[in-house]
Amino acid sequence: MPNQAVPSQAVPSQCQHSEFGLIARYFTPSPPGSDAGVALGVGDDCTLLLPAAGQQLAVSVDTSVAGVHYPADAPAEAVGHRALAVSLSDLAAMGARARWCLMALTLEEADDAWLEGFSRGFRDLAEASGTALVGGDVTRGATAIGVTVMGEVAPEAALTRHGGRPGDLVAVTGALGGGAGGLALWQRGERDPSHPLLLRYLRPQPRLAAGEALRGLATAAIDISDGLLADLGHLLERSGVGATLDPAALPLAEGLVEALGEEGACQAALAGGDDYELLLALPAERLDEARTRLAALGLPLTVIGRLEAEPGLRGVAMPSRSGWQHFLAAGSEGAGGAT
Amino acid sequence: MPNQAVPSQAVPSQCQHSEFGLIARYFTPSPPGSDAGVALGVGDDCTLLLPAAGQQLAVSVDTSVAGVHYPADAPAEAVGHRALAVSLSDLAAMGARARWCLMALTLEEADDAWLEGFSRGFRDLAEASGTALVGGDVTRGATAIGVTVMGEVAPEAALTRHGGRPGDLVAVTGALGGGAGGLALWQRGERDPSHPLLLRYLRPQPRLAAGEALRGLATAAIDISDGLLADLGHLLERSGVGATLDPAALPLAEGLVEALGEEGACQAALAGGDDYELLLALPAERLDEARTRLAALGLPLTVIGRLEAEPGLRGVAMPSRSGWQHFLAAGSEGAGGAT
Repeated sequence: MPNQAVPSQAVPSQCQHSEFGLIARYFTPSPPGSDAGVALGVGDDCTLLLPAAGQQLAVSVDTSVAGVHYPADAPAEAVGHRALAVSLSDLAAMGARARWCLMALTLEEADDAWLEGFSRGFRDLAEASGTALVGGDVTRGATAIGVTVMGEVAPEAALTRHGGRPGDLVAVTGALGGGAGGLALWQRGERDPSHPLLLRYLRPQPRLAAGEALRGLATAAIDISDGLLADLGHLLERSGVGATLDPAALPLAEGLVEALGEEGACQAALAGGDDYELLLALPAERLDEARTRLAALGLPLTVIGRLEAEPGLRGVAMPSRSGWQHFLAAGSEGAGGAT
Repeated sequence: MPNQAVPSQAVPSQCQHSEFGLIARYFTPSPPGSDAGVALGVGDDCTLLLPAAGQQLAVSVDTSVAGVHYPADAPAEAVGHRALAVSLSDLAAMGARARWCLMALTLEEADDAWLEGFSRGFRDLAEASGTALVGGDVTRGATAIGVTVMGEVAPEAALTRHGGRPGDLVAVTGALGGGAGGLALWQRGERDPSHPLLLRYLRPQPRLAAGEALRGLATAAIDISDGLLADLGHLLERSGVGATLDPAALPLAEGLVEALGEEGACQAALAGGDDYELLLALPAERLDEARTRLAALGLPLTVIGRLEAEPGLRGVAMPSRSGWQHFLAAGSEGAGGAT
C-alpha cells in the first residue's frame, strides 16, 4: 500500500519492496534453508515458515510507543532491545521456545544513527534468544514498534494463567522493582549505562530459558509486565483462586532501596511494571526441582506467598486504583511525552 | 508493559488483561475448540494455535497509519476493513489460505462510535475470509493499526514473485485504478458510499479465493498495492526477466474514465496504488483454465503483456521517479495529514 502523503523517499513506504530495502540495510533476516525454519524469506508478499510437526504455535504482539512505553530519549539500542524483549517475555510466560518474529516499525524520520543502534539492540537479543526476524514493514508516522513473536510448545506443555490451585506456592524468578526503579532513575537524569537499575529497565531479559525449564513443574505462570499485584491479579482471576503474599519476602532488585528508599522500593516491587520476571504457581513438592533447574540458569526463585481457595489478595495493602497508578502517585512521573 | 504516561484509563494500557477488555467489547475472538485451530484463545500471555500438519505457514504484517495510508476522515468501518484487507492481500498473493490474525491497535482516544464502526468493518471481513482474530493489543498513541496475518499453504504450492519465465503472459485479476480513483474522489468531497470507485478504495477485496484457485497455474504472483508498474517491477526483478506491456489492454475500474479522464485513468491503472488485485505470470497454455477458475469466482482475468528474457519494461512510458509519485504529481494530493 503506498505511503500517500510522504513527499520524501527517505523512509520507504509500506511497499513490500522498499521496506525491506531499509530493513536489509540494518537487519539481517535469517536466510531460508538455515535452522531457522524459513522456507521463503523476506522479499515476497509473505514469509513462508516451517512449523515443527506436532507443536502448538504460541503467538503474541506488543506495541511500544515512544513517550508512552519508553522515554522518547531512551538510547536507540535499548529501544530495539526492549521492543523485542517485551514480546519474547510473553513466550517465556507460556514456556514456549522462541522461533520467529516480525517487526512493524513506524518512524517519524529515518535517522541512520538511531536506526543503527535500534537494529543492533533488536538483533543482538534476537540472536541471543534464537529468534529469527522473518519479516516486517516500515511506515512513516509517530514512532512506534510493533513486534509479533511466534514460538512453539508441545501440546499440554504450555504454562497458562489458569492452572493455579489452592495450596500452590507463589514464586518469582529474579528480582523485582528494577524496571520501575530504573525508569525513576532515568527520569532523574541517571545515564550510567552500567547502573544495575538502568540495566534492568533498559535491557530487560525475557526469561525464555526459565519458562522452558519450568514446564511440567509450574501449574500457572505470567510475566510481570504491569507490576506484581496487577499480574498476580490476572493469574488469580484466571485460576479462580486467591492468595496471601508476604511482602517481606519480595526479592528487591540490586540498588533499589538506595534509589527509592525502603517504602519506595517495596512499592516498586509490588506495583512497578517492566520487570519481565516470571510469576509462578508451584506445588510445594516441586520447589526444590524448580530451584535446581533455575539455578543452572543463574536465576534465583523466591517464594512470596501461597494460593488459597478464598478469592482476593491478602497480606498487602492494595493500592487505591491500580498498582501502577499507585506507584506513579508515590513518586514516579511516567515516561513523559504522551497525553 | 504499563502505559506509563497515560493519566486516563479510557484506553487500556498494553496490559494483556485490559487490552482484551477493550477488544472483547468490540470484537469477538474465535473461541478455542472451534474449527479455527485455536487451542488457547485470548486472555493469556500468548494465544496457542494448531497449525495443520504438513502445511507451510505464510505470515505478513502491515501497518496502516491515519493520514498516511488512509485519509484521517475515512469512515471507521472502512478503516477496519482496509487494515485487515491489505494484510490478507499478501496471503492472497501467495495462494495461501487465511487462518489467523493479530491486531495491534494504537489509538489517540477511545471513541465508542469509531471503535464500533472500526470493529464491524474488521470483523465482517475476518468472517467473510475465514480469518480468526486470535489476539492483539491496544495502546495509546497516534492512531495506527498493525495487522499480522497467518495463513497456510502446502509445500511447493505457494505463488511467489520469483517463478516468472520468459514467454509467460502477464495478467491481472479484476480492474485497475479504482484505488487511486476512489482516493481522488474522496479528496474532492465525494461521499456516496455506493460510488463504485469509493467502494474500490474504501473496501478493497483481498483476492484470497483467486490466489488459491491460481495455485498450480500461475508461475509468479504479487498483489497490486503500490501500483501496477511498481509491483510488476518487483516481480520482474525477483524473476530475473523483463516484460512488454500493452497499456490499451488495461482493465479500467468502473467509473474511472468519467472521474479522471482518459489520461488520468490510464495513469491511475498503471501507477496508482491500493487496487489489491493480483498480478500474475502465466504460461499461455494455462490461460483458459485460469479464466475458467476465476470466472467461477465472478472475477475476470485480463492479459496485459508478456514476460521476456531481456530485462526492463517496454510498452509504457516509465514515470520519472516511482509510479505512485508520478500519479501524485499528475493530480492527486495524497491522503494528507502526515509530514
